[in-house]
Amino acid sequence: MPSEPATSPTFDRLAVIGAGLLGASVALAARRRGLARRVVALGRSQATLDKALELGVVDEASRDDAILQGADLIVVATPISAFEAALGAVAKFAPAQAFVTDVGSTKAGVVALAERIIAGKQRFVGAHPMAGSEQAGPEHADPELFAGRPCVVTPTEQTDPEALETVTAFWQALGFANVLRMSPDEHDRKVAAVSHLPHLASVMLVEAAEQLGGWELASTGFRSTTRLAASNPPMRADILDANRPAIAQALRTYRDRVDAWIQAVEAGDHTAVLQQLEAAKQRRASSSAGGTLSP
Amino acid sequence: MPSEPATSPTFDRLAVIGAGLLGASVALAARRRGLARRVVALGRSQATLDKALELGVVDEASRDDAILQGADLIVVATPISAFEAALGAVAKFAPAQAFVTDVGSTKAGVVALAERIIAGKQRFVGAHPMAGSEQAGPEHADPELFAGRPCVVTPTEQTDPEALETVTAFWQALGFANVLRMSPDEHDRKVAAVSHLPHLASVMLVEAAEQLGGWELASTGFRSTTRLAASNPPMRADILDANRPAIAQALRTYRDRVDAWIQAVEAGDHTAVLQQLEAAKQRRASSSAGGTLSP
Repeated sequence: MPSEPATSPTFDRLAVIGAGLLGASVALAARRRGLARRVVALGRSQATLDKALELGVVDEASRDDAILQGADLIVVATPISAFEAALGAVAKFAPAQAFVTDVGSTKAGVVALAERIIAGKQRFVGAHPMAGSEQAGPEHADPELFAGRPCVVTPTEQTDPEALETVTAFWQALGFANVLRMSPDEHDRKVAAVSHLPHLASVMLVEAAEQLGGWELASTGFRSTTRLAASNPPMRADILDANRPAIAQALRTYRDRVDAWIQAVEAGDHTAVLQQLEAAKQRRASSSAGGTLSP
Repeated sequence: MPSEPATSPTFDRLAVIGAGLLGASVALAARRRGLARRVVALGRSQATLDKALELGVVDEASRDDAILQGADLIVVATPISAFEAALGAVAKFAPAQAFVTDVGSTKAGVVALAERIIAGKQRFVGAHPMAGSEQAGPEHADPELFAGRPCVVTPTEQTDPEALETVTAFWQALGFANVLRMSPDEHDRKVAAVSHLPHLASVMLVEAAEQLGGWELASTGFRSTTRLAASNPPMRADILDANRPAIAQALRTYRDRVDAWIQAVEAGDHTAVLQQLEAAKQRRASSSAGGTLSP
């Protein structure tokens, strides 16, 4: 459910952990929109931090965790594999009661980790800003990367209500069209259905074509359905690790559909097949009308 | 295997049966390229035929099968469901030894039908010009529709060698980048893999998302993988009928991939998963390098 817009918060010191495309875009958008008096970055790669400084993405950048001192909002924007270390730095250096959010594309594991490491010290609200680009690094940071896109925040029973409001308002102020609220599990199940399963469906189409032959006849339809098979394998493998149960469940649902279609094709019931095709077309078109799939 | 280019043939009277997008584009491309002295259309809809005449796509158009008299090349460009009637008209009115080809997107059934109805009278060579558009009707005819696209011709043991050369040269002269030769069964198996299965994979992703939820989180990846689910249901249902055994086989191969991925995800073997993702990405990229999938 979309939340109501709130007044844009102003932070004294916004810290991003990780100055890659997403972290740097958060920093840049926050500066441009006047959401923080000072924006700083904690990172591992000196070259990346130097570039972020040079491009004016942040006011300060350091490899030293102590840069988190005084931060009243921290955005964890590292790969999921570096989350534990990042949260350890937050627990050690960030002020008590500081607000903490993240950009991880799966949520149940991340939120559980944060609640174990920093709960009772800082106040965490998981988030998945659904924006990205094929490009990486602070040199591609874009303060408009989030415009018109949805962001999900994933509170739990342990989430501090003030933190939920503040973090929601922050993501809204960065330009997201919509900040949706759902549990970490619901988030993970839904992104498995509309993001992780489509990726694997693309990979499986490439694998099936490899077995069956026909590359020389492949056309625009094959190209669009297999586009996701070209996306970054290490990043995708991390996601498959992080969202394993929901993805396995989505694959099982998909297998049931494959079984049903094998039956439908073999039965040769033209009317039933036509109805199923019409229903899928209508279902997709009605979600397009909702905006996210247009055109 | 691509055939060698031949001299452009010149026909006295080229007849297209069906003046929809494909038939009208064949007619227009043949006129523009000087491949036929006269181009005529046989069709069912007077409105469509009038439009084709008015737009200068053909010299003559009629609903009367007798228009096929004197035609030395006939291109059947009706929906597959109208093929039998079209071939009956050919058998009755076209000259003995006339060349006949078609534009059907599945081949085993069509070729068997043609060999039953006209073999020994006219000379048939099945073809699948792999070009199309989302638009229908002669008003969208485009003489450049075929440029850079592949065309498949599907000879059998019964095919007359001169007809194979002549029909191949005709499709090449219309602008296709490549005229591939394979048996009707090989064609049907390959288009099942790279065209019909991807369409069903898209439909099944929509159906799975309907069961699992998550429309509000769908993004560009979901949009591209489900684009084919929006394509014309009656046309797709006809294809599913016409290519039933090959599509059922492709779906079974695909189901084996789904089973393998369920196992891989549940086993959580990061290295194996990463290798499979890399292999699919490379496989797709190497076919892109071959041209058909670029970029």
